[in-house]
Amino acid sequence: MDAKSEIGCLKVSSKSSPASVAGAIAGMIKDGSTVEIQAVGAGAVNQAVKAIAISRGFLSPVGIEISCIPSFADIVIDGEYRTAIRFAVEPKGSHIPVVEGSAASQATQTA
Amino acid sequence: MDAKSEIGCLKVSSKSSPASVAGAIAGMIKDGSTVEIQAVGAGAVNQAVKAIAISRGFLSPVGIEISCIPSFADIVIDGEYRTAIRFAVEPKGSHIPVVEGSAASQATQTA
Repeated sequence: MDAKSEIGCLKVSSKSSPASVAGAIAGMIKDGSTVEIQAVGAGAVNQAVKAIAISRGFLSPVGIEISCIPSFADIVIDGEYRTAIRFAVEPKGSHIPVVEGSAASQATQTA
Repeated sequence: MDAKSEIGCLKVSSKSSPASVAGAIAGMIKDGSTVEIQAVGAGAVNQAVKAIAISRGFLSPVGIEISCIPSFADIVIDGEYRTAIRFAVEPKGSHIPVVEGSAASQATQTA
């Protein structure tokens, strides 16, 4: 497997197997981690996106929907500055505890 | 601009300008649409991901955070079957209408 785990950070290359990376993503998400994926170059970004799409198929049967947030990261490889793409992969709606009731009822009353 | 709009579907190629596509994404998200982006090939997927990352910078100053969900789509181009990547881009927690009680009622009263 080409993806190296680094405290929740997977480094994906253009030669990484999307299915293997997908398995790693699914495992970490099931464990409750947020996963960071780092890719440098179009080929690597493509493999990372495929891995995320495949991992959805592993997770949706167990009721977990995921979404990803891409961002840029400046990194140094062999003394050269490169721009990497980082994907934060997380379960959907994981960060927002939905509290319904008071807010909704107040809105109804004033209407 | 290389991205063609199709009822909320942007087709991105490897020659698309990420900044232009990002502007289109930001505009549609601000209008309340969910955006679908379609890309075929590693170069196109790379440009699409860059566009999504750039659009985050356009939207976060106005308080909109977005996330994307990649999936595979089988399409036919010139009679040949190809696998495209589709990104569903949506505001974070968009499926949950966030109603803040006091703010909403104040707005109603002053209106």
